[in-house]
Amino acid sequence: MRATLLYGAGDIRVEEVPDPRLVHPTDAVVRITAACICGSDLWPFDTKPADGVPTRMGHEFIGVVEETGTDVTTVRAGDLVVAPWVFSDGTCEYCREGLTTSCTHGGIWGYGDADGAQAEAIRVPHADGTLVKLPVAADSALIPSLLTLSDVFGTGHHAAVRGGVTAGSSVTVIGDGAVGLLAVLAAKRLGAEQIVLMGRHKARTDLGREFGATDVVAERGDAGITAVRELTAGQGTTVVIEAVGTRPAYDQAVGAVRNGGTISRVGVPQYEDAPVGIGSLFFRNIRLTGGAAPTRPYIAELLPDVLNGTVDPGKVFDATTDLTGVPTGYRQMAARESLKVLVHP
Amino acid sequence: MRATLLYGAGDIRVEEVPDPRLVHPTDAVVRITAACICGSDLWPFDTKPADGVPTRMGHEFIGVVEETGTDVTTVRAGDLVVAPWVFSDGTCEYCREGLTTSCTHGGIWGYGDADGAQAEAIRVPHADGTLVKLPVAADSALIPSLLTLSDVFGTGHHAAVRGGVTAGSSVTVIGDGAVGLLAVLAAKRLGAEQIVLMGRHKARTDLGREFGATDVVAERGDAGITAVRELTAGQGTTVVIEAVGTRPAYDQAVGAVRNGGTISRVGVPQYEDAPVGIGSLFFRNIRLTGGAAPTRPYIAELLPDVLNGTVDPGKVFDATTDLTGVPTGYRQMAARESLKVLVHP
Repeated sequence: MRATLLYGAGDIRVEEVPDPRLVHPTDAVVRITAACICGSDLWPFDTKPADGVPTRMGHEFIGVVEETGTDVTTVRAGDLVVAPWVFSDGTCEYCREGLTTSCTHGGIWGYGDADGAQAEAIRVPHADGTLVKLPVAADSALIPSLLTLSDVFGTGHHAAVRGGVTAGSSVTVIGDGAVGLLAVLAAKRLGAEQIVLMGRHKARTDLGREFGATDVVAERGDAGITAVRELTAGQGTTVVIEAVGTRPAYDQAVGAVRNGGTISRVGVPQYEDAPVGIGSLFFRNIRLTGGAAPTRPYIAELLPDVLNGTVDPGKVFDATTDLTGVPTGYRQMAARESLKVLVHP
Repeated sequence: MRATLLYGAGDIRVEEVPDPRLVHPTDAVVRITAACICGSDLWPFDTKPADGVPTRMGHEFIGVVEETGTDVTTVRAGDLVVAPWVFSDGTCEYCREGLTTSCTHGGIWGYGDADGAQAEAIRVPHADGTLVKLPVAADSALIPSLLTLSDVFGTGHHAAVRGGVTAGSSVTVIGDGAVGLLAVLAAKRLGAEQIVLMGRHKARTDLGREFGATDVVAERGDAGITAVRELTAGQGTTVVIEAVGTRPAYDQAVGAVRNGGTISRVGVPQYEDAPVGIGSLFFRNIRLTGGAAPTRPYIAELLPDVLNGTVDPGKVFDATTDLTGVPTGYRQMAARESLKVLVHP
């Protein structure tokens, strides 16, 4: 079969690899019908050393189960399924608490010996814990929105949940990528009253307004912080969702959050150290929360609203390609010509 | 009157200063009957530059109201009162939410033109918002415990509340100073099941056991983290309260907290930057919370349990002195010969 491999920064190829097959009795093999490129894929696309060890890419997919191991009981050949961006056993202490990203036996697609999802097919470890059966056909018009349950909608939802967004909340969302825009949608869905979207790409911030943003701030840094404070009686918003992952975005979050409020991060931090001392977080009683989103348990929570059309997170896809077009899709997303590229292998 | 002034690191003196008097109609003047030395006083005692501008010291007190401004309505001359370590107007948006440390008109004793509490008397700004009348006599046996409501018990309570301690929680408390020990008491009071106290001074950790610690870990750093994990099936505790304020204590908290758990800091951070990235907090979904404790609203919450003897936080005092003995008290606490010194001016 064909799969997407990243050989080094900027060097992405679609190549023949061995077909996936069952290895453990808890495995399934899934033929992928829809996958996509994630904003987080752009970090390795930008920085991976050309070390001769290519990485299988892609961690979001919908597909049709082809074969299941003898221990798999919840899905069977022919089922259409969606997978979260981490696989998990569904039975360990962390999975039972809903923190599937800390699963004792879990992993991320494309890491270690796990396949990537920008491919024709994939071996799914712990199929029962990982896959969720979808009650639609593989060519349903809902597929783009359902695909966002793999990662970006669930991640936006995680940001809002961890941020403590409830009815009436004031929220700033930093970043107009797919996760930022879907954090807007998630915050709106949870009842936020004021949602300030910080982003400077009009097509994206327009979609953000459609998703529920009440204000858009194009400025960054101190000017951006000032603009958020002007919209909030000088105080900042109770919740700030940081959906970028850079240090400047973190600093912007510290500046835009209200005393006693919460910074919820879902942008993968490209830094390790950041200010957390007296002047930044401590004296002001700012909470820092968020993290890698355990989207598996969120699928059940968000699925009904996607199926009944209450929300349409699939609008973040503004381009579609087949597998051959994936390298071009990476370049378009890196150049910010595309927001998010849907892949039909 | 006499007051305590810090001229520079190690140079602390009790000197004559002008008697306090009413300045604003919202002020009160209080004759102090009980004050104390705080672990946080030791940071400036250790580091203050000898810049010719002495600092008034002390931020915890009980006293008798001598005089009130014309706008003061909740306390009157003769009342015994306790004050939190920050004064606050009680009416601003933050005060109404209970975040008195962010009061628009608030301040900390000893900063700016505010008097210090290690003195014979003190001018209290915003007396209605700041002072709480106590239903006991100035020589009550409950005075030590009531005095901890100014700061250390309220701060330990804040750590436990922000950490999300509830019935059945597992908690690590880093630090066997007064705040750490009272965080143990607060966690126990809120129903924590397992409380691991990290400290190496036996007299203190023995008091910690009396307050509710189920385990004591004397090791620090990696050895300390390993010991906490051995007590918790390898996972760490759901809550870690950091009551020291150093970077090593922060790192210990990151190592001792369970994935998905919460680090609640109340030790005043002596660092600004710390690890918050993928490996430390982000991938593990660790919350970082806590901060300067708004003890004013906690007084009403904790007072009944102190009055009826359910808790006895005053046990943290292991020495008593008059004002003349305050410099010696600082030296004893800095040398860890005293846990916390009570001052009867």
